[in-house]
Amino acid sequence: MASTSPESAAAATETDGSTQIRRLELADHERGFVALLSQLSSCPDLTPSEFAARFAELAAHGDDHVILVAEDPSAQERRILATGCLFVERKFLRGGGKVGHVEDVVVDAAARGKGLGLHIVRRLVEIAKEAGCYKVILDCTPELRAYYAKCGFVEKGVQMAVYF
Amino acid sequence: MASTSPESAAAATETDGSTQIRRLELADHERGFVALLSQLSSCPDLTPSEFAARFAELAAHGDDHVILVAEDPSAQERRILATGCLFVERKFLRGGGKVGHVEDVVVDAAARGKGLGLHIVRRLVEIAKEAGCYKVILDCTPELRAYYAKCGFVEKGVQMAVYF
Repeated sequence: MASTSPESAAAATETDGSTQIRRLELADHERGFVALLSQLSSCPDLTPSEFAARFAELAAHGDDHVILVAEDPSAQERRILATGCLFVERKFLRGGGKVGHVEDVVVDAAARGKGLGLHIVRRLVEIAKEAGCYKVILDCTPELRAYYAKCGFVEKGVQMAVYF
Repeated sequence: MASTSPESAAAATETDGSTQIRRLELADHERGFVALLSQLSSCPDLTPSEFAARFAELAAHGDDHVILVAEDPSAQERRILATGCLFVERKFLRGGGKVGHVEDVVVDAAARGKGLGLHIVRRLVEIAKEAGCYKVILDCTPELRAYYAKCGFVEKGVQMAVYF
């Protein structure tokens, strides 16, 4: 595992004095986490046991797989307003280097414009750096180039895909 | 882990009646595997123990991390001529879906034009499909769009990166 401590960087912090950014918890299934993802991609809800099973699979990767969420501080039900994921890929090249992959960044439509997404992405980049990654990459639509440029990302190539 | 058996698809086969495509072995360190990767990216050699440690870390992922290699059938030393990697990312979206990521595809400069790279990428895509992935993605330079189109890939977006 990483010799540094990305966990420390992933500890809960606040964006504007109120919105908490923290790692995904099992209870976030009831706080609209999957519904939030449906604003990004096709996302049928999971049963509690399905959610728990996937949560456990990902938790087994330790600090090589981090999902951050931003929680609504004003609502009693603690709704999840934004999320982003980082996973660390270990390679043979670059002297046994590591690459951080940012995936599944989404902000609730009603909570956009507050910087929640940028805050999450910047934290994920910090975590990747602390974990010893030599780079962090992500794929996005051309319209989001400027958004990710605010987090220090520059365009590097094209994303290709095969769908089954 | 995957309920299907990508292992079966990754079993050794032949491309042109002679070149064997198979999963990476520990002994491939002595067959020029790291030197081959240096044709793709900065790639200082690893000591045998460093190579073995990374090999073990990746092997722990089972069929969620597959590195295929093409081996030179004519040389006594069984040099590695081409390679490509697939890792499977598990998500919460798409009903707990899986995405295949193709990385680190490289063919030795002296062995290009024989279709080894395409053969490896097609096999990786097959393995991802058998593992239940709903898509396979990769990042490349714009010049390689047509190359990957031969394996069924279409352009989907832009790749962004931060280097440390």
